[in-house]
Amino acid sequence: MSIITLLTDFGTADSYVAEMKGVLLARARSAVLVDVTHEIPQGDVRSAAYVLGRTWHRFPAGTVHLVVVDPGVGSARRGLALSARGHCFVGPDNGVFTPVLHDSEVEAVALPVPRQASSTFHGRDIFAPAAACLAGGAQLGSLGLAFDSMPLRLAYTRPVRAGQTVTGEVIYIDRFGSLITNLTPDLVPAHAHLLVEDLDVGELKRTYSDVASGGLLAYVGSGGSIEIAVRDGSAAERLAVGVGAQVRVSLSS
Amino acid sequence: MSIITLLTDFGTADSYVAEMKGVLLARARSAVLVDVTHEIPQGDVRSAAYVLGRTWHRFPAGTVHLVVVDPGVGSARRGLALSARGHCFVGPDNGVFTPVLHDSEVEAVALPVPRQASSTFHGRDIFAPAAACLAGGAQLGSLGLAFDSMPLRLAYTRPVRAGQTVTGEVIYIDRFGSLITNLTPDLVPAHAHLLVEDLDVGELKRTYSDVASGGLLAYVGSGGSIEIAVRDGSAAERLAVGVGAQVRVSLSS
Amino acid sequence: MSIITLLTDFGTADSYVAEMKGVLLARARSAVLVDVTHEIPQGDVRSAAYVLGRTWHRFPAGTVHLVVVDPGVGSARRGLALSARGHCFVGPDNGVFTPVLHDSEVEAVALPVPRQASSTFHGRDIFAPAAACLAGGAQLGSLGLAFDSMPLRLAYTRPVRAGQTVTGEVIYIDRFGSLITNLTPDLVPAHAHLLVEDLDVGELKRTYSDVASGGLLAYVGSGGSIEIAVRDGSAAERLAVGVGAQVRVSLSS
Repeated sequence: MSIITLLTDFGTADSYVAEMKGVLLARARSAVLVDVTHEIPQGDVRSAAYVLGRTWHRFPAGTVHLVVVDPGVGSARRGLALSARGHCFVGPDNGVFTPVLHDSEVEAVALPVPRQASSTFHGRDIFAPAAACLAGGAQLGSLGLAFDSMPLRLAYTRPVRAGQTVTGEVIYIDRFGSLITNLTPDLVPAHAHLLVEDLDVGELKRTYSDVASGGLLAYVGSGGSIEIAVRDGSAAERLAVGVGAQVRVSLSS
Repeated sequence: MSIITLLTDFGTADSYVAEMKGVLLARARSAVLVDVTHEIPQGDVRSAAYVLGRTWHRFPAGTVHLVVVDPGVGSARRGLALSARGHCFVGPDNGVFTPVLHDSEVEAVALPVPRQASSTFHGRDIFAPAAACLAGGAQLGSLGLAFDSMPLRLAYTRPVRAGQTVTGEVIYIDRFGSLITNLTPDLVPAHAHLLVEDLDVGELKRTYSDVASGGLLAYVGSGGSIEIAVRDGSAAERLAVGVGAQVRVSLSS
Repeated sequence: MSIITLLTDFGTADSYVAEMKGVLLARARSAVLVDVTHEIPQGDVRSAAYVLGRTWHRFPAGTVHLVVVDPGVGSARRGLALSARGHCFVGPDNGVFTPVLHDSEVEAVALPVPRQASSTFHGRDIFAPAAACLAGGAQLGSLGLAFDSMPLRLAYTRPVRAGQTVTGEVIYIDRFGSLITNLTPDLVPAHAHLLVEDLDVGELKRTYSDVASGGLLAYVGSGGSIEIAVRDGSAAERLAVGVGAQVRVSLSS
């Protein structure tokens, strides 16, 4: 009984996710399906990669992760199935699998495009069938030809140190309006202040209740990087900033 | 281990879907529950029928499809359970099952209304218990008396040909703002142009990447009919049209 | 094969729910996961308690209910696992379990906070592991020390009778804009009128179709208390009222 997770930008109002689930269960009758999310902004490969990076390793080894955020569907972009760190991944070769493409243990195959596949819904016609095969125990090599190059990887901006300042950025904003940054705790010494676009947020706190309701705080988030939030509110709204906004660590304050 | 799919207009913020799932699992402990969607617009039987028509046949034979879009709940409208094409369906007799009412092989029974059933939530008190029975292997005939007439069917507008023009309409708009029409590919010869409310969309393309980002295109959608979309955008917003908008095939262009 | 229900304010757009599900399935591989809702308004313990109160008893005995609406995460508020009425419950001790804290049969333990737990995501690091243990058959007493006091209970306003009027209030508004009140049917004799903030809604009706489309009505809701709705519309919008609005029963009309 394999687990198959689903991560898409399809939303949940239409038939698309259910069409994929029907295909999955018709071919892997005892698979356990788990929705990661279907609310990735349309075509936002970077957000999808972020969410995948936070979730895949929480599932048991052998889980198949089906990711369909695929703005290039039907184009020359390849479809792939890959095996990495004891898990399987299926979806478009557009960088969305970057979080698991760390080492040489990755094995990837290019999925063929059957003639009858819809040109706009490879999730249903190519990726779901491949995921069902893997969930049913098929060998990766039986699904397609080995990749002749590495799957695509997204380039990430890394925090930069200059003088007494380390400059990072907001990489994701969650439903609470919390700003998730690419700054890691090791870049924030004791008593250093965090600044979002010149607004001083103060030193790192431990949790929301370390400030009053409505207060702004920085802390080590549950994903392991620095986050900026408003207790019982939205930092994204309060500060009117989005993904890409500068977040600085001031080492001299 | 039967599959039960759920298709409602209940949304996912309240307790209603979970109340039904509790009833289903209390009576069919090993059923596999699959959400189709709960975001059908309130009481929109036509949209529910469209989504059902795209999904039911993707699931394995024997699946029970529970559909609760039921603006007439508690009125004289009948509740039904039916068997068609190897699948079972349970819900109100308001036309929502039109996509599977094609032939004489349909068998339908009217579900009795127990005295203790809530007058506003037959999904929980009548339809879910019936679906659980069917998932557990009960015979359709054990759930109620055979229908003395056919279940209700929605009337659909069909495309009309007049001179060098075939006129169809938008029947559904998805979360991406794509306009799904009732025009089938056989009505669109090579080099014919598609027009939405007089705007020329050009010839059929194959997929989104056949136009530049922001470009408007027509193509054969994954549901089998012609769709109009904006690559990386929303055709519904761009064109400011809704369900019922005219879409024409110009055979002379 | 235990059932674990999930009830949170995390939304479904981010990774949080899936991180919890990964933890649950990694530790209770054959558990059946059921989403109650993840759309409780941020930190709204009262709404979460209402939804829990409507759903838990629909599930089979032995179900584990994981509730993470936890504005005090990381503070001194305790985390608990409890057993009541044949079901198990896991989450913060902030009143969210009020609906099941009726009698002396409640058994509760305080969950320890491991050093490596995130200070902002006990749902993943403390509550999900505890729920998985219970789903796997662990004894409640093995998860922590018995509570030295009763878990927190929310205080509810009860309807008040004065002269010929019983005054209650709106306690929840659902996705349809229906106003759910704390008035029970026994407080509404035949021919009594319901009034929302001085607007006369008339006598109790049986179901929506007892009024014309767009009509306002009061009826006994599926949760057992009096509701006010607009057929095919939203009473909350029409009347511009929210939770806490007065709803009166006029015994003299």
